[in-house]
Amino acid sequence: MNGNKTGGLAGIIAGRSEICTVGLQGEGLTYRGYDIYDLADNACFEEVAHLLHHGHLPNARELSDYRDRLRSLRALPGALRQALEAIPADTHPMDVMRTGCSVLGNLEPEGDFAAQRDVADRLLAAFPSMLLYWHRFHADGKRIDTATEDDSVAGHFLHLLHDAPPSELHRRTLDISLILYAEHEFNASTFTARVIAATLSDFHSAITGAIGALRGPLHGGANEAAMELIERFDSPEAAEKGVREMLARRELIMGFGHRVYTTSDPRNPVNKRMSKRLAEEAGDERLYPVSEAIERVMWEEKKLFANADFYSASMYHFMGIPTYLFTPIFVCSRITGWSAHVFEQRADNKLIRPAAEYTGPSLRSWVPLAERD
Amino acid sequence: MNGNKTGGLAGIIAGRSEICTVGLQGEGLTYRGYDIYDLADNACFEEVAHLLHHGHLPNARELSDYRDRLRSLRALPGALRQALEAIPADTHPMDVMRTGCSVLGNLEPEGDFAAQRDVADRLLAAFPSMLLYWHRFHADGKRIDTATEDDSVAGHFLHLLHDAPPSELHRRTLDISLILYAEHEFNASTFTARVIAATLSDFHSAITGAIGALRGPLHGGANEAAMELIERFDSPEAAEKGVREMLARRELIMGFGHRVYTTSDPRNPVNKRMSKRLAEEAGDERLYPVSEAIERVMWEEKKLFANADFYSASMYHFMGIPTYLFTPIFVCSRITGWSAHVFEQRADNKLIRPAAEYTGPSLRSWVPLAERD
Repeated sequence: MNGNKTGGLAGIIAGRSEICTVGLQGEGLTYRGYDIYDLADNACFEEVAHLLHHGHLPNARELSDYRDRLRSLRALPGALRQALEAIPADTHPMDVMRTGCSVLGNLEPEGDFAAQRDVADRLLAAFPSMLLYWHRFHADGKRIDTATEDDSVAGHFLHLLHDAPPSELHRRTLDISLILYAEHEFNASTFTARVIAATLSDFHSAITGAIGALRGPLHGGANEAAMELIERFDSPEAAEKGVREMLARRELIMGFGHRVYTTSDPRNPVNKRMSKRLAEEAGDERLYPVSEAIERVMWEEKKLFANADFYSASMYHFMGIPTYLFTPIFVCSRITGWSAHVFEQRADNKLIRPAAEYTGPSLRSWVPLAERD
Repeated sequence: MNGNKTGGLAGIIAGRSEICTVGLQGEGLTYRGYDIYDLADNACFEEVAHLLHHGHLPNARELSDYRDRLRSLRALPGALRQALEAIPADTHPMDVMRTGCSVLGNLEPEGDFAAQRDVADRLLAAFPSMLLYWHRFHADGKRIDTATEDDSVAGHFLHLLHDAPPSELHRRTLDISLILYAEHEFNASTFTARVIAATLSDFHSAITGAIGALRGPLHGGANEAAMELIERFDSPEAAEKGVREMLARRELIMGFGHRVYTTSDPRNPVNKRMSKRLAEEAGDERLYPVSEAIERVMWEEKKLFANADFYSASMYHFMGIPTYLFTPIFVCSRITGWSAHVFEQRADNKLIRPAAEYTGPSLRSWVPLAERD
């Protein structure tokens, strides 16, 4: 058996994939061979979703059809709306996504795997609807109509959240954020989806499990933790002092470093630029400078770089998105990568079943109940 | 990087565990150092659950308290009952379990990990309630009271299913079956639970994901597939002929062979003995002989041995359990092993994040939309 000295399967090849490269030389990110900077500069999120699902960029007709198709899949069945209404208002929104996905799997089961692309599109279109139907029901007491005419997932999301179509700056900022979060090779949630898919279970089971994994603060939950940190400080000076104290107390600071990237996260400069732009628009003189101060201290003290989650936090905040909806946005994006990986796993499947190094007791004799201490 | 030549992480160590050995010399199964045959002969399922969760067999007082505790946790909150009623009658029961677990996580969130043992006990006690509340509601139109006084999980399950306490033979048979299915090292569903738990996500997310993995026909779904096969044949002769024909057509036959065991599945002789006993009780002259014929042909033709799922099928059938409830029974048992693994993962956590071998396109230049074919 091959050992795994550092644990957590770090650096262990769990399978082949044609979808994405992460940090091939310690940095850089490509989807299907396209550099993430080209995609962030030029593509829309729906183009990236099509690229991930089909392996090639759509032409103008395919893109138009795909937008139409996603737009047509935004309404939620009555039984799902009722299930969302019944989820308590103080529930973690990632638990809402997990439950919503599972319930949709009950109401619209995949059945034959030939339907897998339909399920993937349905989830991509319906996740913002699920989240914001639940959110608005509990926050505003409104049963919103989720079938809007917005042309993009980003526009649909912000429209439902704020009850009005967003500015183009906000829409495109979220659009780019969705692109950056869309795919990341065998990260923990994607790997979860593949492990589940590899038992030949259904699509909704794979995605429900992936949502559960993304929920954790060592994965998708990091952007919420970053926001909570940033909001603690009134000034860059306070942040610098506070973070140094946290480091001295060996507290974990979220939004920095990465399992695979060794020198930088290529998504960070894009997020940082967008956060700065929105800070200027908002007239912010606190959160963005605080963020920069934290980033600087983490590099000076720990040589840890900001990852994709760090500036996403302030960027989302400037768009009026409540902190507890940050990780669900990650779901609305990463569903594209998860789906691509489920397709790929199924196309050349083998059960994913590793082994454990046994460190427990050696063989013991049975002790009858009456003779136990 | 260490490669993984056969794929699916076969033989790759994904972490340490003190809980279980599976096929250390190609055969054999121990829980916390106790041989599975000692446990099947002497223990009750609640003792095994305690052993898995706490690392030692309970004394008489601990066992009595544990039974009382589980008995006290069988009632379902009203919102969960409503959610179960709303799940359509033709839903796959594993989807019901997945959704029920997720909804319970909304209603009774774990919060601090200090509550993890309470969540584990709650799920162990409540899974039969969830499944059979849904089943009886749709099958009989009844809203059953799931808080029975039965002394065991097995008794509770059969009581709710048949609306009457079971015979001691049936109760003990299911009890032993729950023991045999309770734990199996880093199988796909347990590994799923650990991958999710390793992001520091919550208990319900880990178990919801595990249920999704267990659902697949390459994992827990195998006992249902075995039953469907057995029921096709009217006689051992027809079974022998039919299975040889299936093998000639290279059809997959479920319930045989194993990723880890190489020579036999130690659980099979126990299941086979129990199935035979119930066949005698039922006066069956078809399903048990058919099962034996299939087992014989698979060994002669493919040198594949029956695994734990194969004789479970007829055994459950003889207890009047509908085939589509077979895999959920696996959930009601394996929740004990899943919980033990979540405890263990959290006690010495590291994010589980393997790598992929990239086989996709090399770096490509961006092509503007108007220039695509």
